[in-house]
Amino acid sequence: MYVIMVYDLQADRTHKALKIGRRYLTHVQNSVLEGEISKGDLEKLRNEIDDLLKPGESTIIYELSSDTILDRTVYGEDPTEEQRFL
Amino acid sequence: MYVIMVYDLQADRTHKALKIGRRYLTHVQNSVLEGEISKGDLEKLRNEIDDLLKPGESTIIYELSSDTILDRTVYGEDPTEEQRFL
Repeated sequence: MYVIMVYDLQADRTHKALKIGRRYLTHVQNSVLEGEISKGDLEKLRNEIDDLLKPGESTIIYELSSDTILDRTVYGEDPTEEQRFL
Repeated sequence: MYVIMVYDLQADRTHKALKIGRRYLTHVQNSVLEGEISKGDLEKLRNEIDDLLKPGESTIIYELSSDTILDRTVYGEDPTEEQRFL
């Protein structure tokens, strides 16, 4: 399946969410990662994120079937490290 | 269709993207909005965002068919103003 993950942590803790997310997904914008992921890895990711968060912080994980993104458009400068990954 | 929009602007300009996005979508996290949108409104939103962005800033718009989000889980505190909107 395909996952989009968006995190919102205190400024000095954002790197922790990024570090976890990068083990499973591709970093595509400041606080956004996305990519194909197996059910097992998604379960691990969910647990690690859930353990990380402190009060006032949040992370949204959107779980999509792999072929359901109709369009993905980046406006402005594309910060994606790999230009083609969909 | 259903749209997820994630913006990354300079700190003192983020409110401008939020103001535009809120006219069409629901604000669900710091720099994330989502919601059902018509093709016409999506076109307007795209144009307004594209006009707004300066060098180094970006916005990603994911366009999904309405029933393709398999799961949406919020970890930590849910900052959504309306709890049920999917």
